[in-house]
Amino acid sequence: MANVVEADTIFKELRSHSISEFFRKNSQMLGYSGKVRSLTTVVHEYSSNSLDACEEAGILPEITVEVKEISEGKYSVRNKDNGPGIPKNIIGKVLATVLSGTKFHRYIQQRGQQGIGGSGCTMFSLITTGKPIHIKSGTGKSAYECDLTIDIKSNRPVVTNMIDIDKDFMGLEIYGEFGDVKYEMSDHGVYEYLRRTALSNPHASIRLVDPEGKEYNFIRSVSQMPARPKPSSPHPLGVTTNDLLEYAHNSVDSKKLSSFLADTFSRMSQNKVAELREMVRDVDFDKDPHQLQWAEAEKLVKAFKETKWIAPDLDTLSAIGEEQVKATIKNILNPQFMNVVERRPRVFRGGIPFVVEAGIAYGGAAGKQVAQGYSGVVIRFANKVPLLFDGSSCAITSAVSGVDWKRYGIKEFEKEPISVLVNVSSVYVPYSGVGKQAIAQEPEMIDEIKLAVQDCARGLQRYMSGERNKNIQASKYNTIMRYVNQLSINLSEITGKKQQDIETELKALIDRRYKKLLEAEQQANSSEQEQDAEEKEIETQEDDESGDDGSEESGE
Amino acid sequence: MANVVEADTIFKELRSHSISEFFRKNSQMLGYSGKVRSLTTVVHEYSSNSLDACEEAGILPEITVEVKEISEGKYSVRNKDNGPGIPKNIIGKVLATVLSGTKFHRYIQQRGQQGIGGSGCTMFSLITTGKPIHIKSGTGKSAYECDLTIDIKSNRPVVTNMIDIDKDFMGLEIYGEFGDVKYEMSDHGVYEYLRRTALSNPHASIRLVDPEGKEYNFIRSVSQMPARPKPSSPHPLGVTTNDLLEYAHNSVDSKKLSSFLADTFSRMSQNKVAELREMVRDVDFDKDPHQLQWAEAEKLVKAFKETKWIAPDLDTLSAIGEEQVKATIKNILNPQFMNVVERRPRVFRGGIPFVVEAGIAYGGAAGKQVAQGYSGVVIRFANKVPLLFDGSSCAITSAVSGVDWKRYGIKEFEKEPISVLVNVSSVYVPYSGVGKQAIAQEPEMIDEIKLAVQDCARGLQRYMSGERNKNIQASKYNTIMRYVNQLSINLSEITGKKQQDIETELKALIDRRYKKLLEAEQQANSSEQEQDAEEKEIETQEDDESGDDGSEESGE
Repeated sequence: MANVVEADTIFKELRSHSISEFFRKNSQMLGYSGKVRSLTTVVHEYSSNSLDACEEAGILPEITVEVKEISEGKYSVRNKDNGPGIPKNIIGKVLATVLSGTKFHRYIQQRGQQGIGGSGCTMFSLITTGKPIHIKSGTGKSAYECDLTIDIKSNRPVVTNMIDIDKDFMGLEIYGEFGDVKYEMSDHGVYEYLRRTALSNPHASIRLVDPEGKEYNFIRSVSQMPARPKPSSPHPLGVTTNDLLEYAHNSVDSKKLSSFLADTFSRMSQNKVAELREMVRDVDFDKDPHQLQWAEAEKLVKAFKETKWIAPDLDTLSAIGEEQVKATIKNILNPQFMNVVERRPRVFRGGIPFVVEAGIAYGGAAGKQVAQGYSGVVIRFANKVPLLFDGSSCAITSAVSGVDWKRYGIKEFEKEPISVLVNVSSVYVPYSGVGKQAIAQEPEMIDEIKLAVQDCARGLQRYMSGERNKNIQASKYNTIMRYVNQLSINLSEITGKKQQDIETELKALIDRRYKKLLEAEQQANSSEQEQDAEEKEIETQEDDESGDDGSEESGE
Repeated sequence: MANVVEADTIFKELRSHSISEFFRKNSQMLGYSGKVRSLTTVVHEYSSNSLDACEEAGILPEITVEVKEISEGKYSVRNKDNGPGIPKNIIGKVLATVLSGTKFHRYIQQRGQQGIGGSGCTMFSLITTGKPIHIKSGTGKSAYECDLTIDIKSNRPVVTNMIDIDKDFMGLEIYGEFGDVKYEMSDHGVYEYLRRTALSNPHASIRLVDPEGKEYNFIRSVSQMPARPKPSSPHPLGVTTNDLLEYAHNSVDSKKLSSFLADTFSRMSQNKVAELREMVRDVDFDKDPHQLQWAEAEKLVKAFKETKWIAPDLDTLSAIGEEQVKATIKNILNPQFMNVVERRPRVFRGGIPFVVEAGIAYGGAAGKQVAQGYSGVVIRFANKVPLLFDGSSCAITSAVSGVDWKRYGIKEFEKEPISVLVNVSSVYVPYSGVGKQAIAQEPEMIDEIKLAVQDCARGLQRYMSGERNKNIQASKYNTIMRYVNQLSINLSEITGKKQQDIETELKALIDRRYKKLLEAEQQANSSEQEQDAEEKEIETQEDDESGDDGSEESGE
């Protein structure tokens, strides 16, 4: 053991690193991998921040994205919105400090939720071009311009060239230069990203100026703000023991555990607190919440699970809307068949509410044309934000491929002109990675997405079997008709009757018989449909049991 | 615009968060999603830290992992190694501070590279059971025990109950309790993880005690330490402008740019510095490296790319080894056919060296048995660590499915008893997520993995076509023989000769003919093989051009 290196020697290499340093080294985790993807990531971060800001301020969003080529692999992006702007004194915290922001700690549905995206862009600009980003911001009362970059070692902002400008400037404009990127018209490019964003955000007006100076206007199709999702309190069924302890130890106003519970959680009435007090008699409900211990919290959470609660508040969720999903699908795909379902909100991990919308399109421009014909396509959104990358590891993709498509008349999903659109909305979307391009494999989410897609697919089955019957019938008819001519010639020779007359009679006979055949088949189909309808009713009842708003439901 | 909310109101919600808070909320990003996966993640973090520590200290690893069920969904994990231990004064930094460690900033191939895994376990224990982890550590000079947890808000360690123990205790033992986990014998469970770890680390002795008390011993099969990968300096072709600036601004010893370059990069001889000085005449090589500007660094990096360099140092890479991969495959799969290839090191992103090993197994226990027969399987390793999750988004999986398997006699990879094993070793593995379960889609890596698999598959083609020929020949022979009996009866009737004699003669005739047929086909095959060999030679030459160690190569 002479060559053994001792611990002291090994650990003299010990260092701590800032979160910025970590993401500088692992920028692919933020979505900066591949030139096309990297540019889309920048536009994604800026435009979804703009949409969030406008929504929060109650302003109908108008966003302009300008992309210019500076030199090979180097592009500028200018993102201008009509939002509320960012106050001068905190611009550095908001756009040049990783893990700083307004969204991370709040219980409200927003596109951003991490406090990483915007600062990530500032860092990506710095590490690929060495340049700061340029900000112009006006809040109505005042306006300014400045340069902004990030000190990576300390994860602190560096603001320079700050000047006040005419306060007529309203909104936020960010100009940045980025290297190692590429503008491309593809399924993963900026154009496609903004087009899909427009489709899921019909209240937004989005304008893209591409590197060739070509303008694309995605015009606002709804001039009303969508219902603003309300900030909500966590539901008792959605908290872990650790969550409860965190809330208790950080509570500000409550002097007693009982009032802390009532103040902190939704659906926690005084009656419910009293009920819990009865259930967990060895926990002192008058104690200071800051003194709550793990064992006590664990007992409370167990009692939460054994109590009947009103389902989570649905006002916290904002979906695209059934009509809008329909318009969206028609708009992009103009399919032969289409069906859209908006499900009732559900919960995952015990009590975090989410809602799924799904649409299926068949024929028209649905699916994707490939060399051998068609391939099925999954169009994914989370909180109305298009997800263009990492599809293979996403819960939405898993759910769609978990559907037994044969039952719905689709022999192979991979070989049909079919598109499935899914949007998942939640106060907390459990992304699988920091780059937020795929939803983690939460079993309850996968199940619910699958149910939504199956709901949609029921109509598809009827459409496909109609199509198939039509085809089968047509082929039977054609087969018989093919022999009519030959048969009439033979019969004419035998009987001496005119061939032409025989052929006409035969055809009439076949047409009559075929009509009867058709009627019989249609009858058979409609009884199948009734059976379908019954099935559906049963599933709907199940829905009601577990997801009805306002009804009491058990946690276990 | 009466309802417009102003920026000051919106941004009073601004907060900064610690990296621990971020991962507490998004623990799925660390691999804590799903009960089985979460337990495997804990064992993965502890055992790979043990292997790294032993390797660094030059000790043949002996690792014991004990998993016990405490109550439903709650398990304890004890991980004991014979490594160098961790000094008392820094135990908190090492195992209870996210983004702190010895690995992140060093240019050396190790299993861990982020300074997140171990502290992540401490946090996961805290948030699922409220408990600290318990440490026993001995460095040879002294030994101690303590409890350790993490203050999530501040990302700081909390050490309690520290006591000195008998200094005979050597190595590190971590005991932790974890909730929301499950022990399961499956492809994604602890047993499978450790079995694969043993297979890729033949110098390690690994012992698992499962929750039923059953012991599994993965015995050491090589009693020599693998060549320790050397810490290396970055290669000039692997740095970006931003990297160069970071190095320059943080350089300690160098007073001049010229000496900084020579001191910092590998393959940077005095001659090379002189050559660069000639190429970039408007950059002052005598200037203080701390004063280096972006534009200057950009010019230098451009010059790096236009210079011929000796390829990156290969001592920085430690692969499993061809013989060991063969033994591994034989050990797990005992296939009918097997081929293994260890490629030469390559670079990605301009200059980060990596090396790919690949193995293909067909028949035996290769592939996976499914209801309809078989399915192909990809067995992934990065730096000898098994990757059990997120396969669909991994560069290895992409590369394998990018292979045109038909060319190699495999009609559908998804339906054959075939396993493909790939290990990627590098100083920096570009993982797609913080949980390190998939390699990002780096085009150069995908290409190289694909080449490695194709190299392997060449042998497979020959095997499969041999198998197929044998089958075709056998079926021809059987078809003919089936008629011999009937034919001999007919001929006997016509000629009056004995049926038995005729049958014997006919069979002899066919056997003679068939033998000729066989020889002819074998000849045809062997000329195919020659052609194959030629193809292979051409590709090998290409290899030599671009990857030969010691030869000069151009960066562009």
